[in-house]
Amino acid sequence: MIQTPYLLFLGDAHDPLAAKVAQGIKDWRPEYALGQFRLEGCQADLGLPDMSIEEAVAAGVKTLVIGVANRGGVIAPSWIAVLKEALAAGLDIASGLHNLLSDEGELVAAAQMHGRTLHDVRIPTVAYPIANGEKRQGKRCLAVGTDCSVGKMYTAIAMEREMVARGMKATFRATGQTGILITGGGVPLDAVIADFMAGAVEYLTPDNDPDHWDLIEGQGSLYHASYSGVTMALIHGGQPDALILCHEPTRTHMRGLPGYGLPSLEDLRDLSLQLAQVVNADCKVVGISVNTAKLSDADAEAYLAEVEARMGLPAVDPYRQGAGRLVDALAAV
Amino acid sequence: MIQTPYLLFLGDAHDPLAAKVAQGIKDWRPEYALGQFRLEGCQADLGLPDMSIEEAVAAGVKTLVIGVANRGGVIAPSWIAVLKEALAAGLDIASGLHNLLSDEGELVAAAQMHGRTLHDVRIPTVAYPIANGEKRQGKRCLAVGTDCSVGKMYTAIAMEREMVARGMKATFRATGQTGILITGGGVPLDAVIADFMAGAVEYLTPDNDPDHWDLIEGQGSLYHASYSGVTMALIHGGQPDALILCHEPTRTHMRGLPGYGLPSLEDLRDLSLQLAQVVNADCKVVGISVNTAKLSDADAEAYLAEVEARMGLPAVDPYRQGAGRLVDALAAV
Repeated sequence: MIQTPYLLFLGDAHDPLAAKVAQGIKDWRPEYALGQFRLEGCQADLGLPDMSIEEAVAAGVKTLVIGVANRGGVIAPSWIAVLKEALAAGLDIASGLHNLLSDEGELVAAAQMHGRTLHDVRIPTVAYPIANGEKRQGKRCLAVGTDCSVGKMYTAIAMEREMVARGMKATFRATGQTGILITGGGVPLDAVIADFMAGAVEYLTPDNDPDHWDLIEGQGSLYHASYSGVTMALIHGGQPDALILCHEPTRTHMRGLPGYGLPSLEDLRDLSLQLAQVVNADCKVVGISVNTAKLSDADAEAYLAEVEARMGLPAVDPYRQGAGRLVDALAAV
Repeated sequence: MIQTPYLLFLGDAHDPLAAKVAQGIKDWRPEYALGQFRLEGCQADLGLPDMSIEEAVAAGVKTLVIGVANRGGVIAPSWIAVLKEALAAGLDIASGLHNLLSDEGELVAAAQMHGRTLHDVRIPTVAYPIANGEKRQGKRCLAVGTDCSVGKMYTAIAMEREMVARGMKATFRATGQTGILITGGGVPLDAVIADFMAGAVEYLTPDNDPDHWDLIEGQGSLYHASYSGVTMALIHGGQPDALILCHEPTRTHMRGLPGYGLPSLEDLRDLSLQLAQVVNADCKVVGISVNTAKLSDADAEAYLAEVEARMGLPAVDPYRQGAGRLVDALAAV
């Protein structure tokens, strides 16, 4: 686990979108986001207090999180001095960039000298077990998608927020780099070795209180030729009691695969449920989460109403409408 | 690719079964198996000429293959002197053991000194691409199983032998350590990083002549909670034109998962085909391969007849009966 709270390093972000990891932390874990650190020319601003390293330490910050994606995912030379200052001041550093902190000799040396930890969340640090398929106590909900990048993380984390607000026991379980940085822990599933994928998901969602829900971040899609194996491991390792179908209605082909159309929500429902019932005979599909960002208010409303009537399940856009109705459906399981 | 032909190192095998990798090479690639090397006390004998390292080099051997599994999969101290002698004499070494050649300092130093290669086939050495899902020329047949270890490798390699004997264009494509050592190449799929599994299978089965068949070794099972993601990647990366269902009729639960019963052949047929048709709409299930080793001749015959009548597909045990009828079915696709 990454120690909290955080100082969010925005570097020299060339636009606000480049700081989307930091934005996610601020949105979903505001209690972790004590301040931001910006270099000259930074075009992003989260509206958090700008802090020096010294001020961050005084405020109780434990970890500097690189919350910005450079073009190419690299650690810019201009960042190194600040990162070394942070290590010297007693902060850990966490990063989800493709280029690893642990490949930067100066940072490794500084971390060793000061007894600090470099967290590269893109790669696993745990020797995950082989999945044993045994039933675990507590309940689990998994977001599955018609495609990649249709809002599975957003759906799971929005449901967690709603459930916690209602006093339900709920934990978002991150399986991707952004989710791990937001929550401070998780499994970077796309970087796990094949034989241990399902075991990593079991590790991520252990025994819990009987009335506790894990909200598991989905990855890929059963219908995405590149990543379907990862999705399969989530279903069989996660042993879900409930599935939420996630969809983006304007997409014309599978992400990155121009020759592949999207499956219908009916197909996704039937296939996901069949596979989930291999490991949990009681699994149910409870709701549909639609990313309507590219639709007008009126079109979104009409689309959701049509899907809801057709599928006989609550269909909502948690960004526009909140996750309340999805949580209602989960609570009824 | 591992250079052939081989000297099969049997070490101090405590029984014939410990040398089953070497036996597989001798059975399936006799032209690679020029000789065997046994230490004192070796309880295995493949009936090949016993050769010293010097004799093997003189006979044209290029690689010493460690064809024996120690208890614990380790490289025994008593082997090191022979392995160093082989490197000094100009041989490469290949191993599928859990303990890696590349972790043995003495061997690494000797290989460097003599310009030889250590092949640890348990780990990938290629940076596999992300799968692109594009249609490739040539045909592909994949063995899928109701469970792990039901004869998928045997089925694929037996079909290759039959096809080559008939003058058909066919290549067995290994996806596990034993298959890789037998054929000299392949992808150790269970050790590939999640995001690249399907891409590794595409890499393994590239464009080929329109009338060429890849016979792809299956792994795991769609119904095996621990490994189903690997199976899924094989189906979506392999883009099979034909599927062979593999089954072992006496198994009472999924291998290693006492709480899980086996699926029916009908379930396996329907699910495998549905998933394969995501990437290849023309895929067909063409036959059934049953491992009847634990049945009497009469029981095996009765079981195969019952399955064949019930499923409407040729059902054979390729070990007892040869793979001819499976190849007939493939040729008819």
